[in-house]
Amino acid sequence: MNGAPVIDFWFDFISPFGYLASLRIDALAARHGAVVRWHPLLIGVTVLKVMGLKPVLDTPLKGDYALRELARYTRRHGVVLARDLRAPPMNPLPAARAFAWLHHHANEQARPFAQAVYDDHWRRGLAMDEAPRLLEAGQRAGVPPALMAQAVSAADAAPLLRDAVAQAMALGVFGSPFFRVGDEPFFGVDKLELVDDWLAAGGW
Amino acid sequence: MNGAPVIDFWFDFISPFGYLASLRIDALAARHGAVVRWHPLLIGVTVLKVMGLKPVLDTPLKGDYALRELARYTRRHGVVLARDLRAPPMNPLPAARAFAWLHHHANEQARPFAQAVYDDHWRRGLAMDEAPRLLEAGQRAGVPPALMAQAVSAADAAPLLRDAVAQAMALGVFGSPFFRVGDEPFFGVDKLELVDDWLAAGGW
Repeated sequence: MNGAPVIDFWFDFISPFGYLASLRIDALAARHGAVVRWHPLLIGVTVLKVMGLKPVLDTPLKGDYALRELARYTRRHGVVLARDLRAPPMNPLPAARAFAWLHHHANEQARPFAQAVYDDHWRRGLAMDEAPRLLEAGQRAGVPPALMAQAVSAADAAPLLRDAVAQAMALGVFGSPFFRVGDEPFFGVDKLELVDDWLAAGGW
Repeated sequence: MNGAPVIDFWFDFISPFGYLASLRIDALAARHGAVVRWHPLLIGVTVLKVMGLKPVLDTPLKGDYALRELARYTRRHGVVLARDLRAPPMNPLPAARAFAWLHHHANEQARPFAQAVYDDHWRRGLAMDEAPRLLEAGQRAGVPPALMAQAVSAADAAPLLRDAVAQAMALGVFGSPFFRVGDEPFFGVDKLELVDDWLAAGGW
């Protein structure tokens, strides 16, 4: 136990705002000597099924606004997204299951794998919903190939992901990106400055 | 024409986040030599009918989160809300109609009236859905009594409000608070820092 603050960070691979948060969360944490724990989330479960909402881009008025907000954010932070945001999202299950499996069985491999998948999907514009692409991403991330092969095919990957999503919801987590610092919840990439202030102040 | 930047600010009297924004928007604008135009909005129309969403507090997971966010914000900014947030909202129509009427017929009276209604409702915890309370608020705000009496009873108040909400939606406005700087849209009180940055930078 070293008393370092812990940031829990939930993300969905199909979430562009989750991708944007993934690019900054570790550096932000490092400035405060904090540790980040990355967790998978499925907004198709939380937002669509449990909350009963439509996808943001299919919501009148809010869809157009979200695209404006995304464009403003990416211009400011110098990020280029290769994917067509109006195209249907990829199936996030294979990548999220593989991530959940690594997270459980070989935790130190999970984050580099997630970063590689995110990079391939949002910066390079690749669909990351089939095993060959995930194996390649794992290779780029330095995950041992035999381990990565297990992650994309293991029978316990699906229940591990289900459990992770259920645990997230039990903590009140619903969106991507979502952060908790201790038990304080923060939703949205535009909360990163507030998380920064919160860590600097030790809360208020 | 003096070239001062213009901030358009939409709010609903039943929105606590709209109230919180109303406390800061004028001072923020003044720092940039900007002008604020206050506009009425009905989230019961935009969010519930047009967007097809549930009230935030009735949305699973998000309702609890919104209360946490509100508590965090009010602690930080030293604001105390007297209303029970879990209680049903008041009917915002009488106040919003009166505001829309003043906005159209006696514009310089509209903002002080809105500030008085917001103060009575959220800081003092009063229901502001009947004419006597609105007349009192107008008096506190320095609105001439004869004018205020017209505002709460005029036949054109309802269509003026309807038109204002329709115009807002035509601009992509849907929530409270909502801001536009030129044609750049910002949703939510937690965007005030971004609006500040945007005005300082002249956009990006």
